Parts: sequence; C-alpha cells; structure tokens
Amino acid sequence: MALIVQKFGGTSVGTVERINNVAARVAAARAQGHDMVIVLSAMSGETNRLIELAKTITREPNAREMDVLMSTGEQVTIALLSIALEARGCPARSYTGAQVHILTDSMFNKARIVDIDGARVRSDLAQGRVVVVAGFQGVDEQGNITTLGRGGSDTTAVALAAALKADECQIYTDVDGVYTTDPRVVPDARRLDRITFEEMLEMASLGAKVLQIRSVEFASKYNVPLRVLSSFEDHGTGTLIAAEDEDMEQAVISGIAFNRDEAKLTMLGVTDQPGVAGKILGPVADAGIEVDMIIQNVAEDSTTDFTCTVHRNDYLKASNIFRAIATELGAREVIGDDKIVKISLVGVGMRSHAGIASKMFQTLASEGINIRMISTSEIKISVVVDEKYLELGVRALHDAFGLANLPGK
Amino acid sequence: MALIVQKFGGTSVGTVERINNVAARVAAARAQGHDMVIVLSAMSGETNRLIELAKTITREPNAREMDVLMSTGEQVTIALLSIALEARGCPARSYTGAQVHILTDSMFNKARIVDIDGARVRSDLAQGRVVVVAGFQGVDEQGNITTLGRGGSDTTAVALAAALKADECQIYTDVDGVYTTDPRVVPDARRLDRITFEEMLEMASLGAKVLQIRSVEFASKYNVPLRVLSSFEDHGTGTLIAAEDEDMEQAVISGIAFNRDEAKLTMLGVTDQPGVAGKILGPVADAGIEVDMIIQNVAEDSTTDFTCTVHRNDYLKASNIFRAIATELGAREVIGDDKIVKISLVGVGMRSHAGIASKMFQTLASEGINIRMISTSEIKISVVVDEKYLELGVRALHDAFGLANLPGK
Repeated sequence: MALIVQKFGGTSVGTVERINNVAARVAAARAQGHDMVIVLSAMSGETNRLIELAKTITREPNAREMDVLMSTGEQVTIALLSIALEARGCPARSYTGAQVHILTDSMFNKARIVDIDGARVRSDLAQGRVVVVAGFQGVDEQGNITTLGRGGSDTTAVALAAALKADECQIYTDVDGVYTTDPRVVPDARRLDRITFEEMLEMASLGAKVLQIRSVEFASKYNVPLRVLSSFEDHGTGTLIAAEDEDMEQAVISGIAFNRDEAKLTMLGVTDQPGVAGKILGPVADAGIEVDMIIQNVAEDSTTDFTCTVHRNDYLKASNIFRAIATELGAREVIGDDKIVKISLVGVGMRSHAGIASKMFQTLASEGINIRMISTSEIKISVVVDEKYLELGVRALHDAFGLANLPGK
Repeated sequence: MALIVQKFGGTSVGTVERINNVAARVAAARAQGHDMVIVLSAMSGETNRLIELAKTITREPNAREMDVLMSTGEQVTIALLSIALEARGCPARSYTGAQVHILTDSMFNKARIVDIDGARVRSDLAQGRVVVVAGFQGVDEQGNITTLGRGGSDTTAVALAAALKADECQIYTDVDGVYTTDPRVVPDARRLDRITFEEMLEMASLGAKVLQIRSVEFASKYNVPLRVLSSFEDHGTGTLIAAEDEDMEQAVISGIAFNRDEAKLTMLGVTDQPGVAGKILGPVADAGIEVDMIIQNVAEDSTTDFTCTVHRNDYLKASNIFRAIATELGAREVIGDDKIVKISLVGVGMRSHAGIASKMFQTLASEGINIRMISTSEIKISVVVDEKYLELGVRALHDAFGLANLPGK
C-alpha cells in the first residue's frame, strides 16, 4: 500500500476511449489498496485548438487571459476521468490547480510552482477517494490562474509527489522507458531499468525528450523517485529515475544522447583580454538565442579563438551578431558551420573510470570521423562532428561501450 | 457615467467574429465613461459538446464532475472576450465564478446563488478595467465548482448587478425586446418600451422565452432595472423591465402570452371532502410533473370535478396516475384532452379596470371560440381553448385591446 502519483499526457487521454482505459488502470491500482493521485494534461489537440481561437483574435493575446483560456483544457480531462472513475464505482474528486492551491509566481504562460498545500488532497485520500488534479496550471497570490508552460504537467506531478511525500511519481507517456540511445538510430538500443537523476538530466537536455527537464530537476531536488511507463502497454516496469544507489555497481556509461540541430560559430583572432567572452555572448543572449557549448582556446600571440554552438534555427541571426561584434572588437574573422551534430556519452560511472574519453575518441577515429569540438562534464563527454557521421558515430559508440549487452542497470 | 452589467448569451459569442463584435460594443460603452461588467455564456454548441463527451462515458455522469466539466465553456468565452478587449487597448480582466466568489449552495447542476462579494470587481473597475465574469457558475462553501443550470447566466448578471448596485442590467439576446405577443403569430405585434417585473414574470412563465424567470424574480427582489436588447442590432433601446412607475399612466393590457404545449386532465365525481386535492396532486408532484392551472368546481351531490393542466409531454404519465388515484378515491371517471392551448392577457393596469374579463370572453365568443377553462390572478386572465383556435384567438384579442396601436408604454 503506497501513495502513488500518476501523470498521463495528452495522447493518453486523447479520446473518451483512452480516458476509460486510464480509469480502468487507476481503479485497478486503487483496488490493490494504493492511495492514488492522478495528474492529467489536456486531450491532445485541445491546447492547439484553444491557441488557434485566441490567435484568430490577435497575434499577441494578453498573457493573463491566455492562461484563463488554456487552463480549461486540463479541467475538461480531470472532469471526464473523474466521471469515468465514478461510473466504475471508484470514488473520485477532480481539482483545478487553484483548488488544491498550487501556488505559483505571476509569470503568466511560464509560471513556476512556489508551494503546494497538500491538505485537501490528503483529506480526500483518507476518505478513500482517488484525487484527480489538473496538470500544467496553478494560481498566483492574487488568485489569478497561471500556467506552467508546455510540458508543465510533468512538473505538477512531481511537485505534488514531493508535497505529499509520495512513494513514487509515475509518468505515463507514449514510450515505455528511457533507452541507451534512440532506437530509431540504433535498433538494439536497450531500455534502462534504472538511471540516476543526474544522468537523466544530461540525457534530457541532450535530446532524449521523454521527460520535461524541469520535472527531473524538481524530482532530484526533492528526491522523488520518478518512473517512466507506457500508457499503451499493460505490463512492463518502465525506467526508474532515482538518486544514485551506493550499493549498486554502476555501469560506466548509461546512454548516448545526441542533438541533430546544432550549428557552430567561431570568432578568430580576438584580442585576449578580460571580459571578451562576455562582450561576445551578451548581445547573443539579449537576442534570446540560447548558447550550448562554449570553447575558448589558449591564447596565441595575444589573440584567441572563441567558439560556441547554437540551435540551427538561430544560426543566421547569431552569425549577424557575431560579425557585428567582430568588427567592434577588431577580430580577424568569423567562420561557422550549420551542418554539425553533437554526440554525448552520459554515465555517473564515468567519474571513477579513466580512459572513457580516449576510448570514445579512438572509436570515432577508427570510423574515420573527425572531431570538431570536445566538451566534458563530470558525467558526460560531448563531441561535435559533421552531420553526416551522426548515425555511424552513435552506432559505433553504442557497440564499443557494450550498451546493447547490458543486463539492465 | 453609469455602472452597467451586460450579459451576452451563447449565440452572441458563438464565433470569434461575434466575440469581436461584442468587444467593439463594450469598448465603445467604456469609452463613453461607463463602468462595465460583462457576463458571458459558453459559445453556442459548446455546452452540448461537453455533455456529449460525458454521456459517451456514462449515461449518468457524477453531478459534481459535470459542473467541473461544464464550467469550462464560459471560461473559454471570458478569456477570448478579454483577449479581444485587450487587443483593442481596452484593459480587461476575466474571472470565473469562483474567482469573484459567487457563492452558491452545493446543489450541483442547479445551484442557487447565496452571496456575491463584489470587492474584487469594484477594485478592478476603480482601476479602469472592464470586468468579464463567467456566467452560469459559482463555488460552494467547500470550494467546489457549481453551475446554476441552463439559462443561469441571466441570473449571474442580475445577481452581480444587485451586489454592485448597478444602474442597469442589460441582457443581450437574439430578439430586440419584449413584444405585446409573438410576432410570428401577430405580425403587427409591438415591442414594449417598458414593462413591470410582475408583468414580465407572467409573460415569461406563460411562454415568452426572452428571459430566464429566475433572473426576473431576482431583479424584482433587488429592484435591479433589467433591459432586453438585441446583440445583432446596433441601435434600439430594447425593453426596460423595472418596478411599476407610479407617475405613468399604465396601459390596461401589456401583452398576450400563450402556451402551445398544454394538456388537461379532469377527474369527475370525486367525493368532496377535505384533502382530496392534495391526494390527487401529491402523486403527480412526486412523479416530477409540473402542474399549471388547477380548477375545482363547486360541489354538487357531495361530489366535485377536479381539473388541472400539465405540459403535453407529461400527459400520458399524468393520465395513468390520475386513473390510479380515481380508482383509489372511488371517483366516477377520468377524462382529458391534449389538444389544448392557453392564452393569457397580462397587465398591471388590469387591477384598476373592470370589464377586461368580459371584453376578453366576448371577443373570443364573437369568433366562435369556446372557452374550456378560466383562471385569473391580479394581473392576468388565462383561458384554455382548443388548439386550433390559438392564432385566431391571439389575433382577435391583440386587435380588441388595441395593442398594435399602443404608443409604447
């Protein structure tokens, strides 16, 4: 008998039939004696329908009112699931974000959760009810409806699990877990039984779009065990994302992440003086462009070369900014390439094992893949290579580190 | 500079284009310096779409959850109208029923308003904002979302107007006011400039479906001047429904109402003893059948005849109940007719004028129309006649009482 928070995304509640399936699953878990709290997204397509309505009126709809509009999507699904549960004889109560006091700041459209008062939910659970909560939404101190932004329902689920000290937070999606790499690239990619929060954060930010990164940060901060499961399969235990388990021997590498849509920009021959990096990146950040890797080589003849990667969509805009700054700083030249990708090895075991980097570089070299950039952190090594080598590189590394053969970690 | 509450129904906000039209109208009134509070229904069709979703899951959806579901309809329209107002540079804030503390009892699906806290609305008005409130919904003392039942948006508007001591509550509909009778029956029926609450109550309950009767009762109780206007015409002053004005000379008759879907049932030869009427009507009421006219003739030979009218849809069910009771009470016979209609003259002037009834009866007689039943109240006279005489009767009375020629009252 555990307290479990389950979150179902838009495709899992996309039709009345699927809502009935979710109800059956929840009622079965309740019948086993578990206390169940369910967090739902809007039916798939509904959020876009609402956005369309607003955009027909004006291109830039008022942010506060957009949240009033958008929050209706989840309110519909929580009501329908509760109706389906009650129809099965399983007592249920639905609540909007405001009703269970999911207190957020007042940043409409991208609010952050500040506090959750779990009293009302606990009282319903004590009375044997399933509690169904609208994801993605909250209320600010003035009582205004807020939304957490896209994917915010994962965060709602984790925050509720933290506030209620739930035993586990289960995220139901359209995949059955986290894989060693994308199975579309490496057919024998393997589902991981377990992965640490840190690894998941590196995997998520590097392109494994299973979970919203904010929800993983939240789970890590409050130590809420997260489980990713498939809504469409009845069996399977998915992937558990939890704190590092000291007793278990960690595999060296957990997975290989990659980003396809990268571009890089280099400013050559910049005078090497304090504050140069800030002068270059300031205007880029001001233009709303996110920078990923940043590399500055050792100075030579009092000048240096400064390189960073950006999303491919921002390449042209960033190039123009780079050229303007280069003129200002008297730099020699700006060069760039928007046909690059990033491949990253991720694993907490990396900390205690030497030689991972050299094995990675040798593996790529033996396939004739030239490495353009390298960046490392405590639990990951990323390399930038030409776009055409992506699949070859990922498959070679997946083999070299024996990921397909892992007995599940 | 007045404080005006305006209510727009489902067809008035049925499309984004119409919502834009409403925004233009509201912004224009605001620009004239009026404080504006707007109450909206769901977009036409939306309420039925939501009901359909729930009914696909179960025939008898949980009442509490139905209110969570249904209340999203108005929440969408208040957000869209506020977006449209803001896009025109007219500051606006939308609020759900819960947000402006429209406190109701806990009768889900048909809750009644207990109290409204106007503080939040007043504060926004003081800051120059248009306040847009979701009609039809409220919140109970436990914080559960409730709905007022169909047509409840009119009641929300009147209740808000009462709480805010508004100068006028304007109900925008698809007709441009209250008429002396249905213009489809009498082409020269005339729009009334003014009508009293009492007259409107008699007109509404008799089939003039312009306003929800509960909202008129509410307006009368709190003396809120109500105005019925067309959403689709820019000019026109509609019909003002207000308390009787002592200074004005009242026309004798304000209008002619009628109900097509009537049926009557008579129990012949019932022993005339105390409690008989209750014994007959108790089981009818228990079956959820509403009874309209009730007539009991003077006793003759210690027996009497008891007649009542019901809605035609209830005729068969009521007949069966009548026959069962007749056997029980030893009554002679039950007879009935479901091809009847009711025609009523309504007017506060009737109080001080003799001869209205006789003029009505003579007018009908001169057209060869036989009167089956008669019932009177202080400000109305109703007769039941054969269905086929409805149009003839209404036209004859409209002419006889000179309604088309009224200079507007």
